[in-house]
Amino acid sequence: MRVGVLGTGSVGRSIAGKLVSIGHEVMLGSRTADNENAERWVSETGAGASQGTFADAAAYGELLFNCTSGDGSVPALQSARPEDLAGKTLVDVSNALDFSQGRPPSLFVCNTDSLGEQIQRAFPELKVVKSLNTMNHEVMVEPEKVPGDHEVFVCGNDDAAKAQVVELLQGFGWPAERVVDLGDLSAARGTEAYVILWLRLWGAFGTPHVNIQVRR
Amino acid sequence: MRVGVLGTGSVGRSIAGKLVSIGHEVMLGSRTADNENAERWVSETGAGASQGTFADAAAYGELLFNCTSGDGSVPALQSARPEDLAGKTLVDVSNALDFSQGRPPSLFVCNTDSLGEQIQRAFPELKVVKSLNTMNHEVMVEPEKVPGDHEVFVCGNDDAAKAQVVELLQGFGWPAERVVDLGDLSAARGTEAYVILWLRLWGAFGTPHVNIQVRR
Repeated sequence: MRVGVLGTGSVGRSIAGKLVSIGHEVMLGSRTADNENAERWVSETGAGASQGTFADAAAYGELLFNCTSGDGSVPALQSARPEDLAGKTLVDVSNALDFSQGRPPSLFVCNTDSLGEQIQRAFPELKVVKSLNTMNHEVMVEPEKVPGDHEVFVCGNDDAAKAQVVELLQGFGWPAERVVDLGDLSAARGTEAYVILWLRLWGAFGTPHVNIQVRR
Repeated sequence: MRVGVLGTGSVGRSIAGKLVSIGHEVMLGSRTADNENAERWVSETGAGASQGTFADAAAYGELLFNCTSGDGSVPALQSARPEDLAGKTLVDVSNALDFSQGRPPSLFVCNTDSLGEQIQRAFPELKVVKSLNTMNHEVMVEPEKVPGDHEVFVCGNDDAAKAQVVELLQGFGWPAERVVDLGDLSAARGTEAYVILWLRLWGAFGTPHVNIQVRR
């Protein structure tokens, strides 16, 4: 499958690299067509990897990943043509991190709304599925970085899009029984708010390779 | 030890009952001296159980539990005499739940502040330790209600007060290795925000007996 990954930071490159390694063709998108991170990633990755603007990557992908910074997410998608977004699944991995008051960051949207929902409202032609935002980028594509059983969440308003994402997550190494479906996209309020705790867990344990297992 | 438990809802009665069962003397405090929940709890519990106003319970306890509703927490403590709070540890179990927009509730303070910190700022003479607010009241005092290993968080600005609470938690059935110290009281932003996710987990799994194990 052709996948457009928006965002050339560590999250975007981890996701894009994993996608190529399991047989997908990936275009990494950024603000400019000559982004250094993207150029290096393409030359290091080789076959299956390409790069372009956000608009190029949105047009290229049959499925899209949003791995931009939280405050860059809506602008990145605005630079795409609406017809290149129409009907596509967008896996939203971003968090609404606000570093303006120092570290750990707070969130610029939280509690009564979420970044996932903001993106869905701004681009109703997309099928937004929130996932993978509750962990470090290395754990996203290599769950065994964290020992023991632990979970990844999905939520979204379109069941077929969620099913597509669950299948992709299995390709990333997440067993089906470790994928927790939290329902519609409003549950992104929960998974995004959890990041405030996750940042404290990182601080307490001194490693970002921290995730949670839900016990019931 | 004499313990004052503020709040006669299910959380307050679960905590108070457990405390009596492990040998403490407990006064359950409420707005009025003739609260029905409190009177029934005292008559059912027998030796070691008493009830009174919030001010009575604050005066009685060598250590205090705040189990009032989030929006009732500061008013409840304001009704106590400052000299009855001075130097005491307050275990803050409350959550800033706002049901005004329906269910699941949102939080009336979140992200850049927390209810635990609001209480600490309003009553600097208390040693506030946030704990137990991340789970159902039955699990608080009977961790085995949830199968497998799972965790309880503590945070607060006074290390001796935290140590006192960790000891109490062990009396509640929490092994020392399942108690996660997140540092100072600002970490309450994390454990309180997590409740937004916890409410979704309750919805997804159809049971409030849900808790998390931190894997690292």
